[in-house]
Amino acid sequence: MAHTRAVSTRALSWLDPPDGPAVVLLDQTRLPAQEAYLTCRDIPALDDAIRRLVVRGAPLLGLAGAFGVALAAYRGDDVVAAAGRLSRSRPTAVNLSWGAGRALAAYQAALQAARDGTTASFSAERLAAWAALAEARSIAEQDAAASAAIAGHGLTLVPDGARVLTHCNTGALVSAGEGTAFAIILAAHRAGRLARLWVDETRPLLQGARLTAYEAARAGIPHAVLPDSAAASLMAAGQVDMVITGADRIAADGSVANKVGTYALAVLARHHGVPFVVAAPLSTIDFAASDGAAIAVEHRPGEEVTSFAGNAVAPPGSAAYNPAFDVTSATLVTALVTERGIAQPVNAGTLHDLGTMPHSGEGAPSDVSMER
Amino acid sequence: MAHTRAVSTRALSWLDPPDGPAVVLLDQTRLPAQEAYLTCRDIPALDDAIRRLVVRGAPLLGLAGAFGVALAAYRGDDVVAAAGRLSRSRPTAVNLSWGAGRALAAYQAALQAARDGTTASFSAERLAAWAALAEARSIAEQDAAASAAIAGHGLTLVPDGARVLTHCNTGALVSAGEGTAFAIILAAHRAGRLARLWVDETRPLLQGARLTAYEAARAGIPHAVLPDSAAASLMAAGQVDMVITGADRIAADGSVANKVGTYALAVLARHHGVPFVVAAPLSTIDFAASDGAAIAVEHRPGEEVTSFAGNAVAPPGSAAYNPAFDVTSATLVTALVTERGIAQPVNAGTLHDLGTMPHSGEGAPSDVSMER
Repeated sequence: MAHTRAVSTRALSWLDPPDGPAVVLLDQTRLPAQEAYLTCRDIPALDDAIRRLVVRGAPLLGLAGAFGVALAAYRGDDVVAAAGRLSRSRPTAVNLSWGAGRALAAYQAALQAARDGTTASFSAERLAAWAALAEARSIAEQDAAASAAIAGHGLTLVPDGARVLTHCNTGALVSAGEGTAFAIILAAHRAGRLARLWVDETRPLLQGARLTAYEAARAGIPHAVLPDSAAASLMAAGQVDMVITGADRIAADGSVANKVGTYALAVLARHHGVPFVVAAPLSTIDFAASDGAAIAVEHRPGEEVTSFAGNAVAPPGSAAYNPAFDVTSATLVTALVTERGIAQPVNAGTLHDLGTMPHSGEGAPSDVSMER
Repeated sequence: MAHTRAVSTRALSWLDPPDGPAVVLLDQTRLPAQEAYLTCRDIPALDDAIRRLVVRGAPLLGLAGAFGVALAAYRGDDVVAAAGRLSRSRPTAVNLSWGAGRALAAYQAALQAARDGTTASFSAERLAAWAALAEARSIAEQDAAASAAIAGHGLTLVPDGARVLTHCNTGALVSAGEGTAFAIILAAHRAGRLARLWVDETRPLLQGARLTAYEAARAGIPHAVLPDSAAASLMAAGQVDMVITGADRIAADGSVANKVGTYALAVLARHHGVPFVVAAPLSTIDFAASDGAAIAVEHRPGEEVTSFAGNAVAPPGSAAYNPAFDVTSATLVTALVTERGIAQPVNAGTLHDLGTMPHSGEGAPSDVSMER
């Protein structure tokens, strides 16, 4: 595990032998000051990178889980244990266990098939590792396609001249495509409909200021960063036409767990009559979680709040309340945009319909490659 | 103007000749890491200190304005020009012009009286300077008494076992007494009614994390710091029984201008059925401002948002939206606590009654001295 420099900004990539096997991550904790890559050659390294938010964001964590399982399989590790460990790296992010589970299932099915059949040249484990990697690559392709579909569906909700407010970071840094909420914002920008993007700085780790402003600047989107607490006054001044955020887990009743501060925005948007839109792939919906109370919210170290870049900003020993996420009830969500379409209103019925509707485009080929 | 070390934590004090005349300020931009004092020997130095938030907070700015006028008078400066300059140092904080105006009026009245009468030993200007300083000291004594009265009145609103959330900083650092909102919190703590203080960190300048947590720790109050955007989830979890904030200016209709983020808290408190209480001396009410729209909101440099302690947290050139204050309509304010009593509900009628009611205790002697 070492930091190396590279010119690509791809957030996650797979490194084949002989240089690998490894999962290479753009270190998002160092952006925008540095574009540094972290090469994770085993599960403890990847687990640590996930916990430290080197890699983050719902769709990308799905890829991290899947490629992590492939990494364990290539290494000859205990693949079941690896999938379990990665699934628990961050408790709220459902995509982690979803991605790890899909790669694990592919691995186990291939292992069984190989043992049942005849394998002249390769071990069953080696074939199964290939299957796990193929599944991870398939997830990446599907994620890129889902991102494009989300952008297309979401664009229909954005009015001309829209001033959109977003929270945290949901673009290409968290996706094999252009992301979730940010993919809609990019589509609106390209369609000439976006007058301005308001970027919540997103305390405590400033993913908005550091990452979303970085992506907005690269895309040429007119934008301004604001303290999270200033969003209310923008809404009161009539300067926000729509709020669009991503999601880290959505319960079956439509409750949305997302970066802390999202719930405040939803309440404020309702108070001011501003549409509050959530964008997420279907994989973010956890149909096993009946409602918001079933979603465990990760609490992170207090030092993320009480210190900044190693400098204390509160007196020594200050306690802190530092939940990574909050939960927004479906009644506050105007619309949920997924790759299969839009749920509006958002409730158990509309989510169930999205989850069970026939779909064709998800596995379609795309030009996204996860190889370096 | 030089930084010196001292053991006192008095936020503002007057330095007589021959060491002065000077206004000595605890540099609040350096807390909690350092307790450094800044000696302002002329109006440009004091004006700069006010703009940089070395000295801040509604009541303390009243003192800064008044002692600043006394400083100009002692120096033989143009006192009217000095009062005007100090009044404009920060546009939203009404106490600045209120304090400067009171000291200026005392100066001008004394000057007129001295010129009309016979002054054997002293120039009229010297007598008038003494009058300005006496008025500033009187404001300080009244502020300390007002703080105690606010604490007493406000305590009646705090239930047993209260978990109180506050924003920004409103304690002894901003007052000749124990402050406004924080004075109520201290009184509740001493009365055994305060179970916990939730301290909004208060971006972008972190007055909550840096200053309120510092004052809470010194007072032994159980407290925790949180990102401003996490307050909503605390309320949703039933962990907040009351929000108490200060105010920087209150319009005649009860609209409250206070540190940015206050308005968001008021909306969230209303959504969750949590009482939202504002504490401020009468001097914060600007009866000349008919409503919130009449209050000019100060916008501060974007670098306060896009950089931290000299390090960029957003890409170079990022624009920022950085209002220092927001405005909360009176309908969202459960009660306004002043030194003369509580306005509840808060509206033009109840504020007018407070502003015109007979009062006796304000000028009462106190043990507060502004001398060093």
